Amino acid sequence: MGAFASEVLGTAMLILLGAGVCAAVTLPNSAARNTDWLTIAFGWGFAVFAAVYVSGPSGAHLNPAVSIGQLVAGNDFAPGIAPTFTNFLIYVAAQLIGAFIGAWVAYLAYKKHFDIAEPGTTKGIFSTGPAVRSYGWNFVSEAIGTFVLVGFVVASGQTPSGLGPLAVALIVVAIGLSLGTPTGYAINPARDLGPRIAHALMPIKGKPSSDWAYAWVPIAGPLVGATLAALIVPAVLAI
Amino acid sequence: MGAFASEVLGTAMLILLGAGVCAAVTLPNSAARNTDWLTIAFGWGFAVFAAVYVSGPSGAHLNPAVSIGQLVAGNDFAPGIAPTFTNFLIYVAAQLIGAFIGAWVAYLAYKKHFDIAEPGTTKGIFSTGPAVRSYGWNFVSEAIGTFVLVGFVVASGQTPSGLGPLAVALIVVAIGLSLGTPTGYAINPARDLGPRIAHALMPIKGKPSSDWAYAWVPIAGPLVGATLAALIVPAVLAI
Amino acid sequence: MGAFASEVLGTAMLILLGAGVCAAVTLPNSAARNTDWLTIAFGWGFAVFAAVYVSGPSGAHLNPAVSIGQLVAGNDFAPGIAPTFTNFLIYVAAQLIGAFIGAWVAYLAYKKHFDIAEPGTTKGIFSTGPAVRSYGWNFVSEAIGTFVLVGFVVASGQTPSGLGPLAVALIVVAIGLSLGTPTGYAINPARDLGPRIAHALMPIKGKPSSDWAYAWVPIAGPLVGATLAALIVPAVLAI
Amino acid sequence: MGAFASEVLGTAMLILLGAGVCAAVTLPNSAARNTDWLTIAFGWGFAVFAAVYVSGPSGAHLNPAVSIGQLVAGNDFAPGIAPTFTNFLIYVAAQLIGAFIGAWVAYLAYKKHFDIAEPGTTKGIFSTGPAVRSYGWNFVSEAIGTFVLVGFVVASGQTPSGLGPLAVALIVVAIGLSLGTPTGYAINPARDLGPRIAHALMPIKGKPSSDWAYAWVPIAGPLVGATLAALIVPAVLAI
Repeated sequence: MGAFASEVLGTAMLILLGAGVCAAVTLPNSAARNTDWLTIAFGWGFAVFAAVYVSGPSGAHLNPAVSIGQLVAGNDFAPGIAPTFTNFLIYVAAQLIGAFIGAWVAYLAYKKHFDIAEPGTTKGIFSTGPAVRSYGWNFVSEAIGTFVLVGFVVASGQTPSGLGPLAVALIVVAIGLSLGTPTGYAINPARDLGPRIAHALMPIKGKPSSDWAYAWVPIAGPLVGATLAALIVPAVLAI
Repeated sequence: MGAFASEVLGTAMLILLGAGVCAAVTLPNSAARNTDWLTIAFGWGFAVFAAVYVSGPSGAHLNPAVSIGQLVAGNDFAPGIAPTFTNFLIYVAAQLIGAFIGAWVAYLAYKKHFDIAEPGTTKGIFSTGPAVRSYGWNFVSEAIGTFVLVGFVVASGQTPSGLGPLAVALIVVAIGLSLGTPTGYAINPARDLGPRIAHALMPIKGKPSSDWAYAWVPIAGPLVGATLAALIVPAVLAI
Repeated sequence: MGAFASEVLGTAMLILLGAGVCAAVTLPNSAARNTDWLTIAFGWGFAVFAAVYVSGPSGAHLNPAVSIGQLVAGNDFAPGIAPTFTNFLIYVAAQLIGAFIGAWVAYLAYKKHFDIAEPGTTKGIFSTGPAVRSYGWNFVSEAIGTFVLVGFVVASGQTPSGLGPLAVALIVVAIGLSLGTPTGYAINPARDLGPRIAHALMPIKGKPSSDWAYAWVPIAGPLVGATLAALIVPAVLAI
Repeated sequence: MGAFASEVLGTAMLILLGAGVCAAVTLPNSAARNTDWLTIAFGWGFAVFAAVYVSGPSGAHLNPAVSIGQLVAGNDFAPGIAPTFTNFLIYVAAQLIGAFIGAWVAYLAYKKHFDIAEPGTTKGIFSTGPAVRSYGWNFVSEAIGTFVLVGFVVASGQTPSGLGPLAVALIVVAIGLSLGTPTGYAINPARDLGPRIAHALMPIKGKPSSDWAYAWVPIAGPLVGATLAALIVPAVLAI
């Protein structure tokens, strides 16, 4: 129960800040409008950093791909929380709820900017989409990016090092810079689906379609990439 | 008394560097003029970093929102300094004095650039303002940004981790990137009010109005956001 | 054998992310296209960071120049792995194989972008080249850059500090920013040769020449710079 | 004697990388040409980071302003090296020699780019200059910037924290972003004078004047700012 609340709070923080930086570079009257990809990559990375601090009790998964990775690798989700399928479902539910809440808080923070947004420009603030549409290859891109994230998680263990949450934050910056542009690097099913649902419900004028046809890619790609990482990386390191 | 001097020095350092980066991107003949929002966000974040090192004895609050957060959460302000309302007032006084001094030192560092500034361009170097004016929503934006900052402070405790002051510095970078543009992210009443008063007194030609009608927003928003964070975050993490 | 697998995995990760950021700034329909050199420098630096985490058993050399530096300095390659010439050759083989694999995975992550790349633009994503062609001076630039890297490695020892892999990552960022543009800073023979071979085999339309005439420079320069660093830096520090 | 060699090596590394990033943003055919001030600030900060690692035996001052600060504060220069005026002079001599050497190595790394540099563009790669010429106010700017650096040094002590050299590196980034543009932030007499002499001797076509009239400012300003920091900061923190 404490882990559930912790995952909700942490994932809400993650999406508040992650959707926030996307709003900052997208919306009218924002001084960060049209700044470059480095801003996006640091923004999402430091969003992870902040989120980890407020979700310590649950191990700060914040991401169903991380949870499935720990499940497959057989690592405890957090001290005292066993890697069971039931716990996986509880974590995913909390992550989706948190992501949904975080998207709404980001909307409130930028309310007056959303009110003057050009029609059709707001979906990308909340959910990802492909640079070149090709469901198969987009799936591959998401799987590769998530492989890097979960490969780090299972290799570094759950015990914080001297860098603490900065390590995973910089891994997310790395993925953003290096593998982010083909699909907008969801690398996290909850990060994409929760805000996609939230955006579909928001009272934004000229709101674009939610592109539900694509929504399965940032769910399936990360789950497959995470599973592969949890199988391959520990095996290689144990040779 | 030692804590008072420490907060003065630390907040002066914070505003010297924070106003400094705003001067660097704003004033004529500065090689950083018109560089992008990432420069602002890193500049303010690393300003916090530097300031923390010279205000250890007081716990490096540097911000009435942090002090009210610790007061509400019931955490000592620093080793041996109890979270009392009297100490809160002493901290706030020191922070305002420090911020006032820091603004003047930044002015001196850029004196020749201020002398050639275009009329009406200097207020934003010292105090914040809204991208879209709406006192209510601007208040909300400031409260949300400060919630993130103080949520981190009360969750991470006062004991420095291996990252030490870098953790709070990167949280400030995160807030700047993700939630900064709607209001210029004061997230700190002293950071806004002290330099606003200082700017009102500076001998700058063509100086713009100090926008006193807005001045309550970056005071009230951060105090409310900090109070909410100090109530909600520890409660969630203790479930 | 475990070290071999670890070097393959780590170097594959390094080149996946390193070639990835080059793809991101080069290829059509990438939101990071034409972003500036800072993006490249951080991208490669954080690629090193991520790669070190998945190659702990081998000491995370990921680079024949690092291996020759440790060989010359007489430092163990990793706990229990002596600095012998045989082990050096094993490490180099693993690094080349890993770099070759990583290049291919980066290709898959950006497959649809490669399909629409302008003719002649893809070689620089995988292998380095000179800004001003002059084999002798290009060799000097590579040797100087690698001297900085291996000087750090032999001075800091093999034991991780509190910064862990972040230290070497930031050294690579430093080299990229300060010494990177004359030759694209291979500073690593495997990082250049493995992907150069991979690119020569990729089914990319309008693929440019692999510039084999230059290929010896990012091999010889790093090996010589590393050897000099391993001789000079410990000697100076031991005075 | 070991400290002398260590300061030479460290300061050479500092100037190699610092002049290197200035060359990267200045010279023709460099992919980093005209990138923005953030690149400069990170480049110099990470140059400090790299330099500290190869000058441990001497305490990695790399800067007469740091040495005079430690002398005034009465802190040992390094374990076993007392803060005497004689040792101060030895450190300064080593720093000047190291800076001179580093400038030449940077020249060699960019040799072919210097050969095609536009006339009059190369001095700023090696030595600083004012954005608005006013010796008095330029002196003030240099003194304020150095106060921040040495205030950090005397407040944080000589013992590395968990961040190790990253702390001072980020302080230098902060100074660059916030206080760097009025004078190019020498904040280090050796960093300016050594390369200024080196540039005066380099065989560069169309080489601009060395601006000796200004050369005293980045010597006197840092020494005065450092002395003030060493007097004021410990006094405030000891109240």
